Amino acid sequence: MYSVEVSLGERSYPIHIGPGLIDDAELVRRCIPARQVMIVTNEVVAPLYLGRLERSLAADQQHSLVLPDGEKQKNLNTLSAIIDRLVAEGFRRDACLVALGGGVIGDITGFAAACYQRGIAFAQVPTTLLAQVDASVGGKTAVNHPQAKNMIGAFHQPIAVLADTGTLASLPEREFSAGLAEVVKHGLILDKSFLVWLEENMDAILDHDAAALAHIVGRSCEIKAAIVAEDELEQGRRALLNLGHTFGHALESLGAYRDWLHGEAVAAGIVMAAWTSKELGMIGAADCRRVEAVLSRARLPISPGTDVDADAMLRTMRLDKKAGAAGLRMIFLQRLGRAVVTAAPDAALLRQVIDARAAAHDSPGAARRTAAS
Amino acid sequence: MYSVEVSLGERSYPIHIGPGLIDDAELVRRCIPARQVMIVTNEVVAPLYLGRLERSLAADQQHSLVLPDGEKQKNLNTLSAIIDRLVAEGFRRDACLVALGGGVIGDITGFAAACYQRGIAFAQVPTTLLAQVDASVGGKTAVNHPQAKNMIGAFHQPIAVLADTGTLASLPEREFSAGLAEVVKHGLILDKSFLVWLEENMDAILDHDAAALAHIVGRSCEIKAAIVAEDELEQGRRALLNLGHTFGHALESLGAYRDWLHGEAVAAGIVMAAWTSKELGMIGAADCRRVEAVLSRARLPISPGTDVDADAMLRTMRLDKKAGAAGLRMIFLQRLGRAVVTAAPDAALLRQVIDARAAAHDSPGAARRTAAS
Repeated sequence: MYSVEVSLGERSYPIHIGPGLIDDAELVRRCIPARQVMIVTNEVVAPLYLGRLERSLAADQQHSLVLPDGEKQKNLNTLSAIIDRLVAEGFRRDACLVALGGGVIGDITGFAAACYQRGIAFAQVPTTLLAQVDASVGGKTAVNHPQAKNMIGAFHQPIAVLADTGTLASLPEREFSAGLAEVVKHGLILDKSFLVWLEENMDAILDHDAAALAHIVGRSCEIKAAIVAEDELEQGRRALLNLGHTFGHALESLGAYRDWLHGEAVAAGIVMAAWTSKELGMIGAADCRRVEAVLSRARLPISPGTDVDADAMLRTMRLDKKAGAAGLRMIFLQRLGRAVVTAAPDAALLRQVIDARAAAHDSPGAARRTAAS
Repeated sequence: MYSVEVSLGERSYPIHIGPGLIDDAELVRRCIPARQVMIVTNEVVAPLYLGRLERSLAADQQHSLVLPDGEKQKNLNTLSAIIDRLVAEGFRRDACLVALGGGVIGDITGFAAACYQRGIAFAQVPTTLLAQVDASVGGKTAVNHPQAKNMIGAFHQPIAVLADTGTLASLPEREFSAGLAEVVKHGLILDKSFLVWLEENMDAILDHDAAALAHIVGRSCEIKAAIVAEDELEQGRRALLNLGHTFGHALESLGAYRDWLHGEAVAAGIVMAAWTSKELGMIGAADCRRVEAVLSRARLPISPGTDVDADAMLRTMRLDKKAGAAGLRMIFLQRLGRAVVTAAPDAALLRQVIDARAAAHDSPGAARRTAAS
């Protein structure tokens, strides 16, 4: 087992990483010591892991709530349903929620924990690669607004994260690849040697080699934890983690959160951010092609798709919640392994990059995406 | 103008107190410097003060949202309506919400600010005595669950509070008295000399003497701010502020949040807490009668009413959200001016106190309450 500490003063917490952690009753009980525990999961994850986690736990009062699967559950009605259940079971302030599942389950469960009685504890047991490398660090919780993702939420840190890499075996290939987008992103923004390691070890990763999985989850958590520790509430440096996300959120939104998985949109977004960085004189075309290559090898799309409407994307990006009064700010690559936050360039330049990326690639990722949706 | 600083590190904020503050454009603009401002108020307050506050503000983009009046608005649907409006107007992370009204408006607006994009700024312009002396300090925000008050919320500190004591002139007498319950409570838990001052100056207070109003609001804010500064998230000492509230919440709940104003229920609750303190050997009967006398002079009920169901009250108190796994904890008076947090006494003792208080008083407050409801 590999452990990463997220250092946030009295809100610090450990992330434990390795195969089989949910069956480690001693670890599970140590990480989740509350007397009242509610596991929130979904109908896809529950048959695989709920019983195992329940057997490892030993709370005096232990319940589970199985939600339907899917991003469309991430709304105020689901929040209300979780709160209803907590009230019905008489959950107190010292109770603990456990999020067993991917990012949707983590976000909604974390937000319920943030709100219930103005904040109770929660622990995360992420079962997707994306949730293990991204959502398990940083304490961002939220539900969606019909017009904008993650518009209603809170910063609420978990008390512990158990990233059982064994659960990744049950993950569809497409979702596994989507998680790799954030892994590659972590290398690009802060750690070139990790990027090189990913380039050299992508086959082992795609083969679900246990040591490779533990390394990508652990190193991703370390990189993200270092950034979050400096900027818990996303006032500055934490924005670096949004590399590719302004473009990516626009793709997700225009695809009605149905056509693109988050990680796929981020991958295409990273490519657009890289080529914009080149236009801004920061990196070279060879760097951009290297970014494309590592994402392609991770079986990710590297183009917004030939049918993208650049103007619609730009309109959507204006509503992006990273936009401050001073105008939209975006993340670019000063070099591989170093990202910077700057004011967004002219819309004309962004439009040119979007159109060029749409035309440049009849990318395998995009083709696969269309076939899958 | 009188100012109190609430000291919470980087979440510190000022409370400005005095008549006519909402017409002081320079002060209003200094306290609320955001470019995008949404004033949230209700249909009772809006005709009186919304136009005046709008004229003092000078935001680039300035909107208002006028909600129906009443506690029943304090729910997730109203939260959703506020968020809808913020999204529709394109409000960014550096926007500011302004709560213009009483506790309900403050709680729901503060919670909307806590959640929108995971937290934006808000300022409070409280127009009731209760909101000025209680809700303006401490950062508690919430909406109600159908089964339990304030069950969904957050700790979110305002950036500034403008307590315009001139707005109290429009407050119905019953609501003014309800606010005095929290003022008396502040003296009882921490400051005997303030309690004595209240005993000696109640006529001036009830006559809305400007200096007296400024003193009770200012001193209440100072006392509450001192406690909150030590315990922002209500882990310990802050619980002292709940003197009378466990009983009071039960009365409010059994009255379907319709029969009792919050402050009225707190007044009756304080009396029951005082007599329980006497039964526990902490204070004497003369102290209890002194508590009753000052509350009575403030035109507040000092009895749960002859029709109270003590068993139903006790059941309701078990769900009270201050209950930890170790069982319900309550606040009692060690002496006048000094409160303590202890484990709740036996239900039999509490039942005896409730029944005795129900029988002891055909209180003018209770009679007035019945007539008013």
